[in-house]
Amino acid sequence: MARKKLNIGLIGYGFMGRAHSNAYAQVNKFFDLGYEPVLKAACARKEDKLKPFAENWGWESMESDWRKLIARDDIDVVDISVPNNLHRDIAVAAAQAGKMILCEKPLAMNAAEGLEMTEAVEKAGVANMVWFNYRRVPAISLAKQLIDEGRLGRIFHYRAKYLQDWTINENVPLGGQTLWRLDIDAAGSGVTGDLLAHSIDTAIWLIGGVDKVCGMTETFVKERELQDQPGVRMPVGIDDACAFLAKFKNGALSTFESTRYARGRKNQNTFEVNGEHGSLYFDLEDAHQLQYYDNRLDSHVHGWQTILVTDFEHPYMNKYWVPGCTIGYEHTFINALADFIKGLDTGVPVRPNFRDALETQRVCDAALKSAKTEKWEKVQG
Amino acid sequence: MARKKLNIGLIGYGFMGRAHSNAYAQVNKFFDLGYEPVLKAACARKEDKLKPFAENWGWESMESDWRKLIARDDIDVVDISVPNNLHRDIAVAAAQAGKMILCEKPLAMNAAEGLEMTEAVEKAGVANMVWFNYRRVPAISLAKQLIDEGRLGRIFHYRAKYLQDWTINENVPLGGQTLWRLDIDAAGSGVTGDLLAHSIDTAIWLIGGVDKVCGMTETFVKERELQDQPGVRMPVGIDDACAFLAKFKNGALSTFESTRYARGRKNQNTFEVNGEHGSLYFDLEDAHQLQYYDNRLDSHVHGWQTILVTDFEHPYMNKYWVPGCTIGYEHTFINALADFIKGLDTGVPVRPNFRDALETQRVCDAALKSAKTEKWEKVQG
Amino acid sequence: MARKKLNIGLIGYGFMGRAHSNAYAQVNKFFDLGYEPVLKAACARKEDKLKPFAENWGWESMESDWRKLIARDDIDVVDISVPNNLHRDIAVAAAQAGKMILCEKPLAMNAAEGLEMTEAVEKAGVANMVWFNYRRVPAISLAKQLIDEGRLGRIFHYRAKYLQDWTINENVPLGGQTLWRLDIDAAGSGVTGDLLAHSIDTAIWLIGGVDKVCGMTETFVKERELQDQPGVRMPVGIDDACAFLAKFKNGALSTFESTRYARGRKNQNTFEVNGEHGSLYFDLEDAHQLQYYDNRLDSHVHGWQTILVTDFEHPYMNKYWVPGCTIGYEHTFINALADFIKGLDTGVPVRPNFRDALETQRVCDAALKSAKTEKWEKVQG
Amino acid sequence: MARKKLNIGLIGYGFMGRAHSNAYAQVNKFFDLGYEPVLKAACARKEDKLKPFAENWGWESMESDWRKLIARDDIDVVDISVPNNLHRDIAVAAAQAGKMILCEKPLAMNAAEGLEMTEAVEKAGVANMVWFNYRRVPAISLAKQLIDEGRLGRIFHYRAKYLQDWTINENVPLGGQTLWRLDIDAAGSGVTGDLLAHSIDTAIWLIGGVDKVCGMTETFVKERELQDQPGVRMPVGIDDACAFLAKFKNGALSTFESTRYARGRKNQNTFEVNGEHGSLYFDLEDAHQLQYYDNRLDSHVHGWQTILVTDFEHPYMNKYWVPGCTIGYEHTFINALADFIKGLDTGVPVRPNFRDALETQRVCDAALKSAKTEKWEKVQG
Repeated sequence: MARKKLNIGLIGYGFMGRAHSNAYAQVNKFFDLGYEPVLKAACARKEDKLKPFAENWGWESMESDWRKLIARDDIDVVDISVPNNLHRDIAVAAAQAGKMILCEKPLAMNAAEGLEMTEAVEKAGVANMVWFNYRRVPAISLAKQLIDEGRLGRIFHYRAKYLQDWTINENVPLGGQTLWRLDIDAAGSGVTGDLLAHSIDTAIWLIGGVDKVCGMTETFVKERELQDQPGVRMPVGIDDACAFLAKFKNGALSTFESTRYARGRKNQNTFEVNGEHGSLYFDLEDAHQLQYYDNRLDSHVHGWQTILVTDFEHPYMNKYWVPGCTIGYEHTFINALADFIKGLDTGVPVRPNFRDALETQRVCDAALKSAKTEKWEKVQG
Repeated sequence: MARKKLNIGLIGYGFMGRAHSNAYAQVNKFFDLGYEPVLKAACARKEDKLKPFAENWGWESMESDWRKLIARDDIDVVDISVPNNLHRDIAVAAAQAGKMILCEKPLAMNAAEGLEMTEAVEKAGVANMVWFNYRRVPAISLAKQLIDEGRLGRIFHYRAKYLQDWTINENVPLGGQTLWRLDIDAAGSGVTGDLLAHSIDTAIWLIGGVDKVCGMTETFVKERELQDQPGVRMPVGIDDACAFLAKFKNGALSTFESTRYARGRKNQNTFEVNGEHGSLYFDLEDAHQLQYYDNRLDSHVHGWQTILVTDFEHPYMNKYWVPGCTIGYEHTFINALADFIKGLDTGVPVRPNFRDALETQRVCDAALKSAKTEKWEKVQG
Repeated sequence: MARKKLNIGLIGYGFMGRAHSNAYAQVNKFFDLGYEPVLKAACARKEDKLKPFAENWGWESMESDWRKLIARDDIDVVDISVPNNLHRDIAVAAAQAGKMILCEKPLAMNAAEGLEMTEAVEKAGVANMVWFNYRRVPAISLAKQLIDEGRLGRIFHYRAKYLQDWTINENVPLGGQTLWRLDIDAAGSGVTGDLLAHSIDTAIWLIGGVDKVCGMTETFVKERELQDQPGVRMPVGIDDACAFLAKFKNGALSTFESTRYARGRKNQNTFEVNGEHGSLYFDLEDAHQLQYYDNRLDSHVHGWQTILVTDFEHPYMNKYWVPGCTIGYEHTFINALADFIKGLDTGVPVRPNFRDALETQRVCDAALKSAKTEKWEKVQG
Repeated sequence: MARKKLNIGLIGYGFMGRAHSNAYAQVNKFFDLGYEPVLKAACARKEDKLKPFAENWGWESMESDWRKLIARDDIDVVDISVPNNLHRDIAVAAAQAGKMILCEKPLAMNAAEGLEMTEAVEKAGVANMVWFNYRRVPAISLAKQLIDEGRLGRIFHYRAKYLQDWTINENVPLGGQTLWRLDIDAAGSGVTGDLLAHSIDTAIWLIGGVDKVCGMTETFVKERELQDQPGVRMPVGIDDACAFLAKFKNGALSTFESTRYARGRKNQNTFEVNGEHGSLYFDLEDAHQLQYYDNRLDSHVHGWQTILVTDFEHPYMNKYWVPGCTIGYEHTFINALADFIKGLDTGVPVRPNFRDALETQRVCDAALKSAKTEKWEKVQG
């Protein structure tokens, strides 16, 4: 098949820059698509850091100013993989320049910024996606499919956790290239934007919108050294942990919790949905499994089925290897990219787009506000 | 060893009446104690129901009025195994009569009643215990031991769930002998008193007192038929589900959730504690296991250890069979009773006593109040 | 209900003596039966050991010579709970005296003895059962039920393990009251008779008879101190480990393995059956669960279902507590006893009887013989 | 870093051809190595099938005759990814031509062929590796590390299974491009060479050589249609299932079993090692986990630790993403290739080489022979 070229301009060379670069290089190996991403240009201020990155992943050129990248005619898609405090300006400018945009999550520092961005892409009419990659974990996509098949019936409960433990040590510094997620000015929030945004995106996708929330946050380590300035200590402004109660528009009761202080939990992103006819459970630490309880089976064989999501019948899996063979973290980005391109192929835009991510941002904002007001807060929008 | 007799008067012949009767019959088979419970008298209003129960379990006599039971000189201990709305009157009267009291949980309809009861037993100076039997699941006792050994360090998080699914069917009736737990007048509350009380008791025992809470409740099925009056329907007054956020006095953040609408969860009473040096996880559906994460092991072998709590080194287990052999639900009552008697033997009273249970009741009350006020509520006392 | 008395004479006061005594005391509390066991007499040579045992469990009288016990008119049932080397003589004598017999497993020292015993009870026409208690684990009974319902179809594979680790320490002594299982003269074999006999009994019950086997054994610790004669060491004659391949009469291929040198496995008695339409998996260390794979479900939701075998629909469970509440090791004996009595009530004798146990014994013998001949051995009979 | 080019010539375009192609394309993205594989030429007889494959994966040129490929001066490495019956001729010719060789497993149709191949590469002095990719599952590499650290002590037992279920349906045809593994002439054996070879390679790597074996095999479906000739049926010559007992040179007892008739097991490659001080358990269906039991921990916290093998401390994982993020099936090939290149960089040749694979082949041969002779067979060599 003759594929059209899709020229990518990537801003950022960190962890997400790597994951996205890999996706661009790999997507056509596994998916049959109308477009072929070209790793056209990588952009970052620090050229010495950018260069080995660009060489390693095969980026054809480099830019040190994102405005120049956006100005280039040979760029079709701008990929925003920088800290959250830069998302808004880049996205708005890229939209105005008519570029398609792939933006890392969370969409923005807050919903106000997110709204600006959303209006910008919608006004410009450019294709846009937010990298909530976990929707494309095959097991989570399968959960969506089972719900859409009507297997759960009325939903009573949803509970989500996203637990990690890597900041318990108070000697972990803050800021800089790799630890900007601990810097309130760069990240906008702590676990809420970083982790709960994933949980919320998944929840809304699976069972619909959130009506109101009531939350609490905590910062366990109050002060940390700056990564880039050894010896200089700074107050920690982010939420180390956040938990909130939620009522969904469909009447479901829900709890959400995230922390980086859950000793022994490395990347435990879980959800459970309880419906009238069945339930689902997922844990990212066992990403290739989906647990399903089907109450309509004979009553003496009821049980939680551990579906090994590696069969050809399962979402995405027929693109890769054979039943029983797992894919890994990086493939969620490949899958997301494939879906983005499929959206271009078919004219049915991919989700989650900026507007979807704005909805998630609004839940984050409401949770954080609620933690301050100590009251329930309605989700805006 | 010459054991002293401990004459028991049991009020109630339901599910708990069975569990307690079994404990009285079995405790001396497994534990070496200074007292031997004697199944002296069983008491209930409906003689036709009481009789087969009493015969089956070997109760020596019957009473139809609890006041008469309390008045009997040959009764040392009054066991309150009736619906919650009767706890207060019986307990106060029994205390005034100088009887020891074993009371089913929750202590009372609310904290006000609970306080009356607590003051009554304390004034009378009678031995008292509340049957929070799950403290005596060996794995939960082991959790307590590991925390007391200092294995977790500073506690950051506690999360508890108690999920069941038996009331989803709206044809389940309400009230009567077996379904009084769905009747607000008999039970005082729904899952909060029935299930969360267990979770709260365990939490306080393990990591200390709760400062404040913020909760929500829901009643999914609004009306049910009366068990005793087929065709007559009544509004459901209890909480079908309750979830709350909590801040502990030690600074730990916590979530609690309970429901009878979690399809596929039969008796899933879980907790997880996350501390600086380690974490613990327990699930009553795998009651013989405790999961422990020890961060002080070599970093490349870190992992959640599934401790099979059946060894002689484990709490209570050297009283029963051999390593690898489990005990069941009923043994938690035997263990609790053994501890009560040991308290008599040693003069160090068993816990949880009425005052402990009052503290739990106050957390329940605060959660329910908070669900109404839609605000955080301080735990009283 | 007016129950008839069933006078029990128990020979032996060890671990099994305790488990059986408990069953006699408890069975009528939970099961509605036509007979009520009476703990009539306990028998053992060492009176000083027997006395506290008899008192603790409520045995009405004591005997020091099993022949006298058998001679008593007031004994209906003889329960053989002594080391294996005594089974044959007692059983034959008891049968000749017209007593019903409940015999601990394995049936005998070897199949020759087992045949004598079987012919004796059949000739005498007395009720007989062998205490293969694990058949009465509710999850194993459920496995039987699912197979009988035709849910697996043609059976391809059966694999069984029974792993423990308590004899790795070479300082564990041998012989005496509690360690006779390590003494070849008392036990007849090591893990083969003690553990694999359970596995074989379950296998035959579930999928039918064994045609031929090929095995190997090992004795890892060659010499141990005598428990009763500190300082005296003796060669170890038993098999510490035994594994064998088996072909079943129905064409299924099978592996069996047992050892007391599997570090970390306390009582891991497992089996897996693979059939055309489905599979089953069980592990005694999670005794309340049965795993079931049903290939006839929709192909995208296939998965191993973990059936929590605590519902009223499950074997035996409606006799005890409520869904979600487990029973323990001791209840397998109560269940077996209830089934024995039900056999008396209904006239349909309980299984496994002596003849069933003889079949298991023959598989054990063939496996042990094969380990010596280093060839496949046909199962006799 | 200036990397040297390593020109690859790949023979075969099937499932393994894809997995290897991916490894060549990806290895330098993640590993810092002295060589860079160049996808120089892909070779297969059917040009129409080869072309899209070569284009998709970026092979620079194509060959239809493997002898021509070997004759090319611009090929450094010959990768043998064709059915087993072609391994020997290609490998011997490639060795004689002085090419490095990467050969898919099993090494050969039988040990005789394997010996020829091994002698050829050793005589030629060319670098050689067999793609036993599962050694490079991080959790299996970690198992090796823990054993090498002395954590298990004396080894008593090893048990391995490799279970699948994809040939139960008797309508699955045989032969042709994708089903040659069911054709005895192309594959040499069934599950023994395909699956047990993996299990044996892992076992030998972890605990050392096998002394003797005793096995059985079965072919459940006796006849299948030819994939390439619909309507034509042929007797099935392969072993559908194979199980064998083994005694290792170090005295350990072992069982091995493999089948494609274990309903519900998709790729369940498991092993358990029981040692004096600890045990290990692995299941490829949960490839990111290693279970470890450490008997030297305090006795009341003993338990099977589930090590989530995704930390920077774990083998290979610091090359990829961050803790908690898994890699998939394909990465085992990337890891293996990286180790091969590292062998070139350092001069310490990678393992398993042809001689290692020959040892595995000899165990396979002994097991198959034993199934025919119905006796124990010594492993040759």
